[in-house]
Amino acid sequence: MRVATILEQKGSNVATIDGHATLAEAAGELRLRGVGALVVSVDGASIDGIVSERDIVRRLAERGAQALDETVSEIMTTEVRTCAPTDTCDDLMRVMTEYRMRHLPVLADGSLAGIISIGDVVKHRVGELEAESEALHDYIATGR
Amino acid sequence: MRVATILEQKGSNVATIDGHATLAEAAGELRLRGVGALVVSVDGASIDGIVSERDIVRRLAERGAQALDETVSEIMTTEVRTCAPTDTCDDLMRVMTEYRMRHLPVLADGSLAGIISIGDVVKHRVGELEAESEALHDYIATGR
Repeated sequence: MRVATILEQKGSNVATIDGHATLAEAAGELRLRGVGALVVSVDGASIDGIVSERDIVRRLAERGAQALDETVSEIMTTEVRTCAPTDTCDDLMRVMTEYRMRHLPVLADGSLAGIISIGDVVKHRVGELEAESEALHDYIATGR
Repeated sequence: MRVATILEQKGSNVATIDGHATLAEAAGELRLRGVGALVVSVDGASIDGIVSERDIVRRLAERGAQALDETVSEIMTTEVRTCAPTDTCDDLMRVMTEYRMRHLPVLADGSLAGIISIGDVVKHRVGELEAESEALHDYIATGR
């Protein structure tokens, strides 16, 4: 299963936020969009960074309530791992494990073209397992 | 790969918190333990609920800074999905996908015996893929 196929199903829409937004605004956006991370982007095409629920909770632990008034650009991860439409789910699992990333933005022709979460990757692996199980069932039932 | 095998590698230690703790304290504990969710437990053996980074960020989005003084028991998920040492990684992927859970506490003889995150599950799938790749490589190299 390739990233392009996952994007056909989930769409290429990415929840983005401006680096000048506060962490309070980022929390609101994460809740509104029902996602675990936002791509930080001024134009919705370039990638300045990524900010996750984890980043916000860690900052709150360090700074207390005042963290909510800090800006996204102060805490975002700037070295963003990305993936390509031609990458496979297995490739993504390796990158997510090695770098402990839970979200990989998709870059196509140098522009933001989607985002794949660890939940998306596991969901598609579950789909593969069900297809394998059905194929085995058919094989046993029909002998071919 | 079964849950028991994963626990042999990662250990049975579970980050827990008392339901009376504040969200500020929970944020501190999440950071300190380097985890994405805490099992809410009075004695470290029973499970009263589970509280995640997501739960905290959503509450902050709804209530602002005052959420930090609220208690874990006010926002925790009380209907906790658990798994058993005999469950497979594939079983866990299905449950995590169906219920959109990212952490499954392990119950053995009715008592908390570990916790498996979606990251653990993916890490072990990556291990399987590498073993398959090596086996295929050996087969091609030696013909057996």
